[in-house]
Formats: sequence, C-alpha cells, structure tokens
Amino acid sequence: MKFEALKSEVDVWLNNYFSNKGTYNKKIYEAMKYSIDIGGKRVRPMLHCLTYEMFNENYREVIAVACAIEMIHTYSLIHDDLPCMDDDDLRRGHPTNHKIFGEALAVLAGDGLLNEAMSLMFDYCKDRGKNELLACKIISDSAGAEGMIGGQVVDILSEGKKISYETLSYMHRKKTGELIKASILSGAIIGRASDREIDKLSDFGSKLGLAFQIKDDILDVVGNEEVMGKPVNSDIDNNKTNFISTFGLEDCKNKCRELTKECMNILDDVDRDTLNLKELTKTLLYREK
Amino acid sequence: MKFEALKSEVDVWLNNYFSNKGTYNKKIYEAMKYSIDIGGKRVRPMLHCLTYEMFNENYREVIAVACAIEMIHTYSLIHDDLPCMDDDDLRRGHPTNHKIFGEALAVLAGDGLLNEAMSLMFDYCKDRGKNELLACKIISDSAGAEGMIGGQVVDILSEGKKISYETLSYMHRKKTGELIKASILSGAIIGRASDREIDKLSDFGSKLGLAFQIKDDILDVVGNEEVMGKPVNSDIDNNKTNFISTFGLEDCKNKCRELTKECMNILDDVDRDTLNLKELTKTLLYREK
Repeated sequence: MKFEALKSEVDVWLNNYFSNKGTYNKKIYEAMKYSIDIGGKRVRPMLHCLTYEMFNENYREVIAVACAIEMIHTYSLIHDDLPCMDDDDLRRGHPTNHKIFGEALAVLAGDGLLNEAMSLMFDYCKDRGKNELLACKIISDSAGAEGMIGGQVVDILSEGKKISYETLSYMHRKKTGELIKASILSGAIIGRASDREIDKLSDFGSKLGLAFQIKDDILDVVGNEEVMGKPVNSDIDNNKTNFISTFGLEDCKNKCRELTKECMNILDDVDRDTLNLKELTKTLLYREK
Repeated sequence: MKFEALKSEVDVWLNNYFSNKGTYNKKIYEAMKYSIDIGGKRVRPMLHCLTYEMFNENYREVIAVACAIEMIHTYSLIHDDLPCMDDDDLRRGHPTNHKIFGEALAVLAGDGLLNEAMSLMFDYCKDRGKNELLACKIISDSAGAEGMIGGQVVDILSEGKKISYETLSYMHRKKTGELIKASILSGAIIGRASDREIDKLSDFGSKLGLAFQIKDDILDVVGNEEVMGKPVNSDIDNNKTNFISTFGLEDCKNKCRELTKECMNILDDVDRDTLNLKELTKTLLYREK
C-alpha cells in the first residue's frame, strides 16, 4: 500500500540522517533518535509529501522538509511528556524520553530536534527560491509561541480548570492543528500551487487538524491501553478539559464524521488528483489507534 | 560611548519586538520577554553588528539577525537554569525564569525563544540572497546538537566527574564558543567579506569564545556575588570541572591575557577598520563582571 511505502521512506530517511550524526558527542543524538524511532504514524511528513505530489510528481524533492516537520513534532512530544508538563511515562507503548535518558537530556534532546529541523530547512532553502523560504517560515511559525507552543501553554495553564469552548478550541487549533495545517500548506507552496488551491488546502488543513484532535480525544476514551500504547483516559487523569468532557462522546463522534465529510468536499473542489490525500484523511479519521 | 548606544539599540529592538507579540496568549510572551529583559551585556548581537559594520556601514540592516542570536542565547540560559540542569535560582541578579513562571512555562519560554529566533531568520532571508541563508544556517548549526546543545550535554554528563582537558575544552568550545564565533562569522558573511577575511575572523571568533569562557570561570572565583548577580563559585558548588579547577587561577589569567593578545594580532591582520571589534574584545576580556 502506498502509505506504508511512503512511511517507510520517511523512516529510512530519518534513520540514515541520525546514523550519520554525532561525531564526538553521541549521547544527545542517541536520545534524539530514540524518540524519532519509537514514533508514530508519520502523519505530518506524509501529508506534506502527498500534498506536494499533487503538483509535482517527485515527492522525494521535499522529503527533507517532511522529516524536519517530523522532528518538530517529536520534540514537542518529548517536552510535553516531561514531569513538569504532562508527566507521562509511556509514549507509543515505550518509556518516554526522560524515563530512559533523564530529564536534563530529554529537555536537550527536544531542543536538539527543534534546532536540527531548522538547520535542515535552512540547508534546504540554500539553493532554492522564495517559495521554499515562505514554506519553511510557515512551518517555523506554526511551531512557535503563536502556534504549537502557544497551544501547549494554554493546555498547561488550563489544567484543573473549567475552560470555555473558545479556549479549548484555541488550544487544539494551536497545539495540534497548526503544524498539521502547515505540513499541508508548505507542501502546496513548494509545489507552486495557485492562490486558490492554497486557500482551499489551508481550509482543508484546519478542518483536518481539528478532526484529528477530536478523534484523538475519542480514542483517549474508547481506545484500550494496549492498542493506544499510552494510558487511556490520561487527559481525565490529568484533570484536563477536552472535547469529550465538553460535548460528550456522541456529539464528538458526529462532529468528527461531519468534519471528515467537509474535508472530502473541499478536496473535491480542488482540480488536482486528490485521491491520496482523501485516502489518508479517511485512514486518519477512521483509525482505531 | 558607542557600545552603550549599540546595546541600547538592541534593547529597544527587542523590547519593541516583544511588545507587539501575543494576541490571544500573552503569558508565553511575558515569560520570554522576562528573560530577554533581565539580560545582559548583549555581547553576541554587538559582535554581529560590529563585524558586519566593518564591511557595510549600516549595521541596522542586520539588527534582526543580531537579536535572533540574542534570543537563542537567552533560551539556552533559561533551559540551563532549570532544576533538572544547573538548578539556579538567580541569573543576573534576578530570579531565574522558572522561579517566576514555574518549570513548565520556563521550558516553553525557552522553546519559544529558539523558535522565534528561527522564524525571524527565515523572514530575514526571504528577500535576500545566498549569503544570508548561509549565515543563518551557521547560526542555527552553532546552537544545535553539534554546537551549544552538544556542549551542554557534555557539561551535564560530566557533573561530579573528573574530566580530561580535551573534554573540558570541547565542552566550552561548543557551549559558549560556537555561538560567539557564529555571531562574528555570520556578520562577516552577510557583509560579503572575502574568504581570507572570513578565515581570519573565524579564527578570531574561536579564540575570543575560549577567552570569554576562561574569563567567566575566573570571575566565578574572584568576583563577588553582588557584582556578578549570581552565586559566586556556583561551578564549585555544582561539583563541576572548569578551567580554574583544572589549571589554577594564575595559569588561567595568563592564558586569558595571551588569548587577548592573539585576538588583537589577528584583527591587525585584517585590512579593515577593526577598532570597534578590538575595543569590544578588550571590554569583554578585561571586564570585572
């Protein structure tokens, strides 16, 4: 299946990248690589590559950017899991980074991955044009204090409090949505999409990001620990407001279905071969883990 | 005095930058701005601007890059001070970031500053050329796992251990030296210095970075707490190997003097107006805090 092959390519690229790193100081790369290796679905790099591929056949052109996005995502997970944040012991069925390497190294491994991603993107832009720079700026912004970090701050500050729908929605749009949207948008921009296409795909990215988070909240309640690889109901344990605690399970399932349809409709309105993006969207939103 | 005026300009630029940030989520920018505001000598932005100015009069052209470097430096201080790292309560005479905002926000404020610096540099490169991208790549690399983060990892892993001169030297070259060198090198590259000039200034940067760290170790022993704004002998309290514990105070003072002279000789060999860089070097290496 195409997605498996693409995921493998991302895995191989990341594995090669980190295998060649760390001349004197291997420990930090070991910690960085650990969290990259135990990770995940590679949703963001796949979205980036598949969006780019709608405009330009050879997605290998952008695989470095795709992997930089995955590094940013992985850094955020390492820091989110820290004792001073969500204090999680398990991630994807494996001990979290600080459980293996200690807190200090986990902080530094996160820092290292964010930094590495940026270096990779500067390098990528060196022999390219304005579009590439704009795309990397969008990715960088989506990860920053007005993006993912901003969302995590609201999450931390809201712990144990009842928060409004506006705040909940802001938090998830920033914490999860922005980087997902940026993965799509940056792929389109590097692929030289038209303004109309960029608008459409931006809208698609926002809706997919929101649906992805709602789906995550649903699975946090109905999944079982073995399937999810992390303690189920961890949000409830952490006394956190999420979509389920605000709207209830049934409404969330409906909302997720509705958003999935809207995503499909937007893609129908883009005059390109959107089959792969559609398939991936379905895979993500109908997933069971 | 020129340096005071330049430092003020950097302060004003940073102040304006952060005053306009944080639309919905002000808390994270408050934490980021706090550590920027209590900071320091602005050594790195000044080195960047003064080096650039040797090749191109208007250093305001590069002030955004200079301030991005200061953000990277500040993020590293916030993370270094964390309880899981050096566990410092004071920085420049003020409570450290986590003492004011808590650990979670301090981690995120550091992340935010690193990320903001990168976004600023992508933005800066947008309408410029290859040299600017190369300069930003050098800055980004100098902060990363093969640079500053790598040095901090060795520092953490060496705590309480006797380490070799080779390790000590690697640690400081990476932890302090690389970003100082990158500040100079990037200024020269954006200013379109010749290859020979870049080589010379790279050598100057390495030596200045090393001398700066030795001076810091000297002041850590002979300074007094009021002047330094942080507990004196904190390295000894933390059971850390430094230049003083390895070579003794007198040898370190001699080494610092020797390196200062070498820095001057290198600058004499650059056919530009190096007066300001020389003055700043003396100010840094003869400083008492």
